Amino acid sequence: MFTGLSAFPLTPVSAAGFDERGFIRLLARITAAGADSIGVLGSTGCYAYFTRKQRRHIAEVAKAHAGEIPIMVCVGAVSTDKVLRLAEDAQAAGAQALLLPPVSYQPLYEEEVFELFSTLSQHVSVPVCLYDNPRTTGFTFSDALYARIASLPFIRSVKMPGLSSSPAEVQARIRQLKALLPATMTLGISGDASAGVGLNAGCDVWYSVCGGLFPQAAKAITDAAQQNDTARVRQLSEQLNPLWALFSKHGGSIRVMAAAAGVLGLTAADCLPRPLRPLSARDTEEVATVIRHLGLQ
Amino acid sequence: MFTGLSAFPLTPVSAAGFDERGFIRLLARITAAGADSIGVLGSTGCYAYFTRKQRRHIAEVAKAHAGEIPIMVCVGAVSTDKVLRLAEDAQAAGAQALLLPPVSYQPLYEEEVFELFSTLSQHVSVPVCLYDNPRTTGFTFSDALYARIASLPFIRSVKMPGLSSSPAEVQARIRQLKALLPATMTLGISGDASAGVGLNAGCDVWYSVCGGLFPQAAKAITDAAQQNDTARVRQLSEQLNPLWALFSKHGGSIRVMAAAAGVLGLTAADCLPRPLRPLSARDTEEVATVIRHLGLQ
Repeated sequence: MFTGLSAFPLTPVSAAGFDERGFIRLLARITAAGADSIGVLGSTGCYAYFTRKQRRHIAEVAKAHAGEIPIMVCVGAVSTDKVLRLAEDAQAAGAQALLLPPVSYQPLYEEEVFELFSTLSQHVSVPVCLYDNPRTTGFTFSDALYARIASLPFIRSVKMPGLSSSPAEVQARIRQLKALLPATMTLGISGDASAGVGLNAGCDVWYSVCGGLFPQAAKAITDAAQQNDTARVRQLSEQLNPLWALFSKHGGSIRVMAAAAGVLGLTAADCLPRPLRPLSARDTEEVATVIRHLGLQ
Repeated sequence: MFTGLSAFPLTPVSAAGFDERGFIRLLARITAAGADSIGVLGSTGCYAYFTRKQRRHIAEVAKAHAGEIPIMVCVGAVSTDKVLRLAEDAQAAGAQALLLPPVSYQPLYEEEVFELFSTLSQHVSVPVCLYDNPRTTGFTFSDALYARIASLPFIRSVKMPGLSSSPAEVQARIRQLKALLPATMTLGISGDASAGVGLNAGCDVWYSVCGGLFPQAAKAITDAAQQNDTARVRQLSEQLNPLWALFSKHGGSIRVMAAAAGVLGLTAADCLPRPLRPLSARDTEEVATVIRHLGLQ
């Protein structure tokens, strides 16, 4: 399941809490587009803002509305005990894979992160994707730690942070990682702006925020990548540059995608959990203009 | 309550979970030394690693064993909803004050952090201390934001991160903050290595990790500060330089204080919640040597 398009939807909220109907609308778009997997409760899926009970319920709703598409559920938490409980919940809800970021409060040592992955791998019966996102977790992986964790049972993919936009640099980096890691481990690009470059450099999967809301546009890119049509991958990705520019302007993708979901009428205009605040009316208008101009729907 | 020595004990764990007996032993030392307040479930108190239910129980235990000393309970969490629930729990447990760090997952904007403090201030009936610790929260305050938050009701103190070790720089900084903030707001130094310099520069309170385990040594320093005996403050603080050096060597105070608590027989040798790991046997031996050499007990 760790190939092609893995679509990461928002988990919208309303004043009453988790917006189940809005979430189901997002899932329906992803299943209609035929994504290869769904990343439930990723960073943009706001896992860090929900309680354990909410996270279990959200995983169940995702499973019930994912059709034949496998779901991967994020089990990130500061404490190892909580990660294990979340992993039990996610598997009980029918998750076919788990996603683990080494979320930190006290800065972590490599050995502590290794032990976290090792402990999880001893308690699961589904594959696990290593989630590398220093910006949100506060932890930076070394290549040596990647390799140690990849040697553990059940570890089958890595969700990398965004890479450079230089194709030559990215190609060199992907070659290096493919040489380092076992062939059973797939490499996933995230940071949507570098997805095209990453796929053209040989990444096996796009862990895609864009695919969570605009799955058809994202699927066209991963389809082109699977046909080795590098020119088309580049062209389709560059067409979306105005969207990537908005991500960059607003400190990441989450507030932009939340605004876009509201613009499309799929969620409330304000669908982010506090303390996250929605974009201003003016910035939301800019988002609306960009998605209209790009023909995204 | 936001003056003098605020002692921040560890919240020890054992294989069975929260080590209530060990925690009570730590509290007994603090009450015997006569600290001015107790900071329950601070960073070194591992709040981020416990569930809501555990945090409520830990606050209740602290209250039951704090004697006449007021307790301040940390209510930090990624989601505003959870902060409010934790604040209700802490107040129900008898907390006389709350401590709020703007813990982030997605990086936060100033307006979002302001709204978090504003929301909490509308839901409490006890004073709140602003907890500024960029290393663990991922958020850096501006002075302008300090001032805005200080103007909210119930905000009465700021727990600053460690400052420079240059007395002149620290004096200039404290003068600047005293000019900026209302007189009702006390300034608290943390980062134990800069405590002496901070107190001599006019900080009103030491939010002290050292005071959580060695309250007599810490109280001697805040007592000297209250007598304006700057030479003695400096001397007593510099005597502890070998302890501050261990904090620096081990990426912060928490693993060192956990090792020291084990060395003193107050907790299990391994009393940290996973994924945090205890120091190695060799490093623990060095901690034992330092506390013996300093006459800490």
